[in-house]
Amino acid sequence: MTNDQHASPSGRARELLYDANVPTLSHAERARTLAGSVRTGTLCTVALDPPGFPYGSFVTFGLDAGTPLFLVSELAEHTKNLRADERASLLIVEPVGEDPLASGRVTLVGRCRPLAADDALRERTRAAYLAAQPNAAYYADFADFHFWRLEVESVRYIGGYGRMSWVGPEEWAAAEPDPLAPHAAGILAHMNQDHAAVMVEYCRQLSRATDTTAASMTAVDRYGFEMSAVTAVGPRPIRLGFSRPLATPDAVRQELVALAKQVRSGP
Amino acid sequence: MTNDQHASPSGRARELLYDANVPTLSHAERARTLAGSVRTGTLCTVALDPPGFPYGSFVTFGLDAGTPLFLVSELAEHTKNLRADERASLLIVEPVGEDPLASGRVTLVGRCRPLAADDALRERTRAAYLAAQPNAAYYADFADFHFWRLEVESVRYIGGYGRMSWVGPEEWAAAEPDPLAPHAAGILAHMNQDHAAVMVEYCRQLSRATDTTAASMTAVDRYGFEMSAVTAVGPRPIRLGFSRPLATPDAVRQELVALAKQVRSGP
Repeated sequence: MTNDQHASPSGRARELLYDANVPTLSHAERARTLAGSVRTGTLCTVALDPPGFPYGSFVTFGLDAGTPLFLVSELAEHTKNLRADERASLLIVEPVGEDPLASGRVTLVGRCRPLAADDALRERTRAAYLAAQPNAAYYADFADFHFWRLEVESVRYIGGYGRMSWVGPEEWAAAEPDPLAPHAAGILAHMNQDHAAVMVEYCRQLSRATDTTAASMTAVDRYGFEMSAVTAVGPRPIRLGFSRPLATPDAVRQELVALAKQVRSGP
Repeated sequence: MTNDQHASPSGRARELLYDANVPTLSHAERARTLAGSVRTGTLCTVALDPPGFPYGSFVTFGLDAGTPLFLVSELAEHTKNLRADERASLLIVEPVGEDPLASGRVTLVGRCRPLAADDALRERTRAAYLAAQPNAAYYADFADFHFWRLEVESVRYIGGYGRMSWVGPEEWAAAEPDPLAPHAAGILAHMNQDHAAVMVEYCRQLSRATDTTAASMTAVDRYGFEMSAVTAVGPRPIRLGFSRPLATPDAVRQELVALAKQVRSGP
């Protein structure tokens, strides 16, 4: 976990209206979550022709823990490049919205190596790759296709404006994707549709945004949740932490119900 | 223009039911059209750290004819990399649908160079970049941001399954994006909604799909249009050429009306 202030494109920092020490996802956890939510990326290799130029190609990938997995044809440019030079990187970008540079992205840099048919990792690699890319099953065993693994040596994470860092390979390997990521959209929709009033009380009573008149949930992760609070000085971000890391939507529901009881009993 | 057969993921080729010589977009034209329709890509550079590794980063870009333009901060990793080694490539991918590997993509390989404040190309570059990225206007003149141009030396185009080639720099520079690309979705929607019956006649009378029972338009470009014809052996692609290259939706309308008169007068 790290602390990570909200950043705006203009770079202006304003006084936080919530506890700056509230736990949040580390950059390693954010990057792992992002990588686990996307199935395509850019594989960068060292070109054979023109020699030495960095060459980007579009690939599908899977993940075995934090290790990117590929299933590529020997005929592909990137495969020919990797056969000559194993140095590579994989850029993964979350879906691009209205402001492209606000999108999160992560570059995994390392060495990319093929697995022989009798490699001890092959079955595990095959299973993890096909879990991510089920349509590849019909060519997974073609003679000119092989599985490759990108052994990550360094990780560059950019979470949007003003949120970026290098992540070391041990931290990358140890980080878990946020277990709530697949459920976040559903939780947000539910809270914003049915529980807008109680979120106003969360902001008024549990943060310094005591003049909040409306609030909507903008993010949720295992460590807490974020709201946009409408205050006298405009919309302000509020983050509140959970009492412990949560892994399921049901655990979030219980925690938010307990918080609702707390604010309803008054400050 | 080149001839380019429909390819299927399975690689099975079947007898074409239309004239294989009907003109179609060249790979250079397809790649230029793709590049002109997308505003973000992956810039591949040679990393300073770890040294020599190919490094992929997410960028916004503009185009001056076929030359990619960037506006990047001196603080960005790719800028530091390019200051040390100008070799680069830009991967551009069209929006990914259900089958990612069916998406078109193009890699532009070349040397990426910054423009000095007094460079003769600077104003032209600035205008073309900001036309593509209007939101960048507010930081375009910041002291640590500079414009860069990627001088393209070779182009790798992959149009999906079985459609790929290298395009030379002269052919790339000379190719025009298809002028109908911005209008294609509208033309398809109109034809499929209001003119399904006449398209059946196009297929029955102007191709070898004489048993067509239903048809929908799937693509249109300056040289012609494509339909999916429902035949006794299933859906089959049919491409028909225009009498001359067309540049506007109105010219397409006139051509399709003339074609409708031709088929209504009977075979």
